[in-house]
Amino acid sequence: LKSSLIGDRPPVRRFNLNNVTITTDPIGNQEAVLILTPMARFYQEYWDNLMKINYPHDLISLGFILPKNKEGNAATIALQAQITKTQKGAAKHRFRSIVIERQDFDPPLMSQDEGERHKMENQKARRASMSRARNSLLFTTLGPDTSWVLWLDSDIVETPPTLIQDLAAHDKALIVPNCFQRYIDSETGKPAERPYDFNSWQDSPTAQEIAAKMGPDDILLEGYSEMATYRALMAYMGEKENDAGLEVDLDGVGGTALLVKADVHRDGAMFPPFPFYHLIETEGFAKMAKRLGWQAVGLPNYKVYHYNE
Amino acid sequence: LKSSLIGDRPPVRRFNLNNVTITTDPIGNQEAVLILTPMARFYQEYWDNLMKINYPHDLISLGFILPKNKEGNAATIALQAQITKTQKGAAKHRFRSIVIERQDFDPPLMSQDEGERHKMENQKARRASMSRARNSLLFTTLGPDTSWVLWLDSDIVETPPTLIQDLAAHDKALIVPNCFQRYIDSETGKPAERPYDFNSWQDSPTAQEIAAKMGPDDILLEGYSEMATYRALMAYMGEKENDAGLEVDLDGVGGTALLVKADVHRDGAMFPPFPFYHLIETEGFAKMAKRLGWQAVGLPNYKVYHYNE
Ligand SMILES: Nc1nc2c(ncn2[C@@H]2O[C@H](COP(=O)(O)OP(=O)(O)O)[C@@H](O)[C@H]2O)c(=O)[nH]1
Ligand SMILES: Nc1nc2c(ncn2[C@@H]2O[C@H](COP(=O)(O)OP(=O)(O)O)[C@@H](O)[C@H]2O)c(=O)[nH]1
Ligand SMILES: [Mn+2]
Ligand SMILES: [Mn+2]
Repeated sequence: LKSSLIGDRPPVRRFNLNNVTITTDPIGNQEAVLILTPMARFYQEYWDNLMKINYPHDLISLGFILPKNKEGNAATIALQAQITKTQKGAAKHRFRSIVIERQDFDPPLMSQDEGERHKMENQKARRASMSRARNSLLFTTLGPDTSWVLWLDSDIVETPPTLIQDLAAHDKALIVPNCFQRYIDSETGKPAERPYDFNSWQDSPTAQEIAAKMGPDDILLEGYSEMATYRALMAYMGEKENDAGLEVDLDGVGGTALLVKADVHRDGAMFPPFPFYHLIETEGFAKMAKRLGWQAVGLPNYKVYHYNE
Repeated sequence: LKSSLIGDRPPVRRFNLNNVTITTDPIGNQEAVLILTPMARFYQEYWDNLMKINYPHDLISLGFILPKNKEGNAATIALQAQITKTQKGAAKHRFRSIVIERQDFDPPLMSQDEGERHKMENQKARRASMSRARNSLLFTTLGPDTSWVLWLDSDIVETPPTLIQDLAAHDKALIVPNCFQRYIDSETGKPAERPYDFNSWQDSPTAQEIAAKMGPDDILLEGYSEMATYRALMAYMGEKENDAGLEVDLDGVGGTALLVKADVHRDGAMFPPFPFYHLIETEGFAKMAKRLGWQAVGLPNYKVYHYNE
């Protein structure tokens, strides 16, 4: 990586992509990480958890994209306030660089309410729109010197502080933890947890058969009783024994927390906003990565937690 | 577009993508253009022509990607010498910024010889590799404030100096001039010209039928007598009358010179290195753009010229 200023013009920058390492020792090798977050709402718990991520912050760039509506405006203000505080605060907490983008297209739905968001008939338009937001953010923030991209949803409120190093240590092209949600069990009145994200799965013959009978623009969805796919869901692969390192190959991935080697994106893997093998967004991304020769892997016993509305 | 330095850290940059205009008056609106060139060989005529492009150079960023082999090394040295000269020279010729990348994967073929390059059995691997190079360049240089991307091959040696404004004036998502080649007619001994690029076409029922019978990983190729597609090629649509503004809708495009609204790429449109509807690279890109709702257009009578080996 060589950077030289010629005359009084901005620099001519030269990058040998061979010299951008992507290793199991990302801290030792000073590897740059880009954390990308599409954000419809700001949660303080997300920011507090992000602050606790103990990968060196001066190796981390942050990228956010927020919708251009009332909720997005409120989230931008809240986010900006936290950023200002952090970047003015203790040097060790400051990030390398931060980009905030506002979308130039409207989200298809008015409501960010969980029930409304998850309705099956709303999924295609909603996830196509999410794909566009993710692509826009990705294409404009990825650099030639980025080693890793961590996709992290704005409602992920709890992860191990060693999230990045832990995932990178597995040396996988795409790797996804198991996304759970904490709640209070109404029967026992005690804290409990349940699976939240059903987009990380292994394909099934049933899903393949449904897909084969579909029209070219139809999509398969996971987690809806109307469409029983019998895919093997990572959500249910967690074991009592709790071997945190257990790896399973996946055909679809969720994007709540997802570590990707930057080369996968540089090769062209993005979030298809159109049906791609009847899949879209993060699930289509896993399929596209596979077409490019990169295998997705999941960690059933390594957990991150989604906000509970 | 607002940029503010917080503390002594690199800037927090905020972009409202709505404020990045993409209009038919790109100079009047000071729109940023990114010129992207994959480069296996350096031609002085390419650089001289680039210098004559009269879109304000301080609105133009340049991005190059070169293979990491002997020819690529030689091309990098020659390119670097011209860049240094330009960026140290008269202020009005200097570009806004320049990025040079070296590939981290090997080209599949040893020879850059035209005959070898164009052999049908070499096309799939060669164009998959070219797609990866284009994607790598695109994903790492596109910014939130880029309005237009001009793809320009390193062997395009002659274009109108008003190329960018002329193409932008059409207000099309993807627009492609007709790529010709000058030669000396061996019968008359006089200068003549002939079509060079056959990747800009309108689809045909025959091509669709061939595709329908293909295996999922097979690709359609244009310009090979072994595979007669009967597509309508823009190469042959040029008219004597020479209405330079004539527009035709296209289903496939070539990438020798190709102007793209940056939003098309930001939406996710890239160069598929895998068969996408049996198409790859620039032809697959046109199809992918179409899936995202963007129509490609060609200008049969507006010409650019390819080097003659
Ligand atoms: N930029 C942007 N982000 C969004 C939009 N809708 C949701 N998000 C964010 O995208 C991520 C996933 O969306 P979410 O609604 O939480 O999905 P769910 O948890 O699967 O229901 C979260 O980080 C949201 O804040 C949108 O319209 N634009
Ligand atoms: N980075 C990179 N560029 C290449 C490679 N092969 C060709 N190119 C460039 O890609 C463009 C198209 O390739 P070219 O061989 O001219 O294609 P053709 O004119 O269709 O035969 C030209 O600008 C080449 O210089 C490669 O392996 N790596
Ligand atoms: Mn969520
Ligand atoms: Mn060429």
